[in-house]
Amino acid sequence: MDVQTYMHGVGREARAASRFIAKAGTHAKNQALTVIAQALERKAKRLLEANARDLEAARKKKLDAASIDRLTLTTTTIEAMADGLMQIAKLPDPVGEIIGLKYRPSGIQVGQMRVPLGVIGIIYESRPNVTADAAGLCLKSGNAAILRGGSEAIHSNQAIAACVHEGLKAVGLPETVVQVIETTDRNAVGELITMQDYVDVIVPRGGKSLIERLMRESRIPMIKHLHGVCHTYIDDKADFDKAIRIADNAKTQRLGTCNTMETLLVAKGIADKVLPPLCKIYLEKGIELRGDAAARKIVPGMKAATEEDWYTEYLEAILSVRVVDGLDQAIEHITTYGSQHTDAIVTEDITRARRFLAEVDSSSVMVNASTRFADGYEYGLGAEIGISTDKLHARGPVGLEGLTSLKYIVLGDGHIRQ
Amino acid sequence: MDVQTYMHGVGREARAASRFIAKAGTHAKNQALTVIAQALERKAKRLLEANARDLEAARKKKLDAASIDRLTLTTTTIEAMADGLMQIAKLPDPVGEIIGLKYRPSGIQVGQMRVPLGVIGIIYESRPNVTADAAGLCLKSGNAAILRGGSEAIHSNQAIAACVHEGLKAVGLPETVVQVIETTDRNAVGELITMQDYVDVIVPRGGKSLIERLMRESRIPMIKHLHGVCHTYIDDKADFDKAIRIADNAKTQRLGTCNTMETLLVAKGIADKVLPPLCKIYLEKGIELRGDAAARKIVPGMKAATEEDWYTEYLEAILSVRVVDGLDQAIEHITTYGSQHTDAIVTEDITRARRFLAEVDSSSVMVNASTRFADGYEYGLGAEIGISTDKLHARGPVGLEGLTSLKYIVLGDGHIRQ
Repeated sequence: MDVQTYMHGVGREARAASRFIAKAGTHAKNQALTVIAQALERKAKRLLEANARDLEAARKKKLDAASIDRLTLTTTTIEAMADGLMQIAKLPDPVGEIIGLKYRPSGIQVGQMRVPLGVIGIIYESRPNVTADAAGLCLKSGNAAILRGGSEAIHSNQAIAACVHEGLKAVGLPETVVQVIETTDRNAVGELITMQDYVDVIVPRGGKSLIERLMRESRIPMIKHLHGVCHTYIDDKADFDKAIRIADNAKTQRLGTCNTMETLLVAKGIADKVLPPLCKIYLEKGIELRGDAAARKIVPGMKAATEEDWYTEYLEAILSVRVVDGLDQAIEHITTYGSQHTDAIVTEDITRARRFLAEVDSSSVMVNASTRFADGYEYGLGAEIGISTDKLHARGPVGLEGLTSLKYIVLGDGHIRQ
Repeated sequence: MDVQTYMHGVGREARAASRFIAKAGTHAKNQALTVIAQALERKAKRLLEANARDLEAARKKKLDAASIDRLTLTTTTIEAMADGLMQIAKLPDPVGEIIGLKYRPSGIQVGQMRVPLGVIGIIYESRPNVTADAAGLCLKSGNAAILRGGSEAIHSNQAIAACVHEGLKAVGLPETVVQVIETTDRNAVGELITMQDYVDVIVPRGGKSLIERLMRESRIPMIKHLHGVCHTYIDDKADFDKAIRIADNAKTQRLGTCNTMETLLVAKGIADKVLPPLCKIYLEKGIELRGDAAARKIVPGMKAATEEDWYTEYLEAILSVRVVDGLDQAIEHITTYGSQHTDAIVTEDITRARRFLAEVDSSSVMVNASTRFADGYEYGLGAEIGISTDKLHARGPVGLEGLTSLKYIVLGDGHIRQ
């Protein structure tokens, strides 16, 4: 069977299954999640065997250490997958929620009902745990899912899929509610992102090159995360201790996450005071600093930052540092070089805080808090499918609600339009 | 200057202007709307002269009567444009609204702030009043607008644009907040829908062929309205009088609107009783009926409906009629042939009403009310830029809120991630 025929078959099955999962009750969905979690733990040995096959192939292909690390399953990561599903089971069911039901002068009652999106296509790279996470989030939000994992994780993903199907079957739902693509043919992605009749939204989870390819080629709306060039701006009216604590945490608490600070902006009025102790902390923690001329004057030995640096999401132990005149230049810098992900100001001045909140056009804007807080769990969403840097639909961390939409409902008693 | 250079210039200006309009105060925006409304009325003569030039060209090109009707401005339609802008001025400002600000266990406060989308590209056909409406809605919601009207309305649109610019200037906003494309070169649309760096969302308002072209070619997310194949299902537990009243109103109150019923579904248990009097009403009002075999048996003389009829948005005095077994077959029919726009059930049975509300996947789902209510004004949105049949972002009538998005805001007091 050619890949187009195969993918269109998957699409048709998903569309059909989406009607069953959309009307599945809360109890059935939670029960399915519980059975999947139990199956993952019970079949841990089989999962590890499947994973071992993937790892062997990966080593033969000489994948780099980081990729192999992401690919590796352990009993701990399997338990974490099962725990994640149990967490999703405990979240309130978003489907069917009715909001804002109000009477209108005509006598009709108008409100909105939260409903699933339909069929969600998820494209991801090596981490097999995404298979369980994404399946769980789609299932709970009443959506059918088509999961396209990395070819290097094919055996692991299929083993996880078997557990997912066990859970669906246990509550009488079609196994096709969650389909994991069985071919490693790269053209499968091309088909998935153009099957407008079968797929309602694409959620890509992967590196920038994957996202950029999908942005060029997808004919289906996406909820996507491009990149995170996050800033912290230390205002000259910042509290010194808060500035140090936040700027330290935003960069060094974890280096490789999308909400990690990549550029530090410091007002010239406080730069002399705050940069020396802060840079001492960074250097002690092994962070390479790249500064503009003014920053290098205050902290000699810093490398010179290039224009390219201001645009760069390092995701490693490098930080660019710029001294700015004040709030206006900080906002200007963030607007020019930022990626509309997460940006923070440290200031005690409420007027400047209000301006920063209003004028910085990013998915998360913070006052006196570390950018590292930009996360579905920290925001109380319970779980996240990703962080959206788009403006339409969902912005910032996307939880169950981001996988739903609102339709209007109208209740009347024989009402007609005059 | 070639069209690409021109359009990219427009895009750059719009992006720059979007930052000014995003932070404009409520009073300034309302003042601008008021001045525009006054200018439209004061310059009515100039508008009618510009419109006369368009109409003359249209007649030479032998445009059909309906197009010429849509193109025509009168003192009444100019007053209506001005009134519309004053209505928008009276609506609450959506920008800056903060919702759901709550403390999290970590101590941070997390909420969402409503913000403009940025730059909105609107592509429409002959009606020049869209120029004023769309400019007003974008301005009030803090967005810059690039308006691309039909080439046949170019002089009318430019005359309206002059009034819009007068209003923007009066409050010190850049005129580039609203740009009306000055070229009739058809390639301008192709540029507009692919300038991802400058345009955040495309709102097309036009016929199906325009929308289908944009769906193929646009690289920018759209808020779009494809078509409206709306259904009314009369259940066998319907109240007879409500059924007649609603089915009559949904089809005949206005024939050419997207929320007009195109297909009537009647449960076989009530068809004998309800179809004869209802069809009498339709025939008296000049509606052509096209039925399935069962409907034609009850109302002889009805034309036979073809498979194509069930998919058709007539937008004229034609109605297709089908007798169904009951609720399941009605939902099945709507799922197969509908356009996810607006569908209604007439029933006194609460369980069936609840199932219809939950299972019909349309932007508006109604119980015992006419589909004609699917409208921004009737829903209390105050004004609408269109009705979205998309699932992501905005669904159903789209008002000011649909032209905004929600970003997360985080307030701390030196909080860091543990």
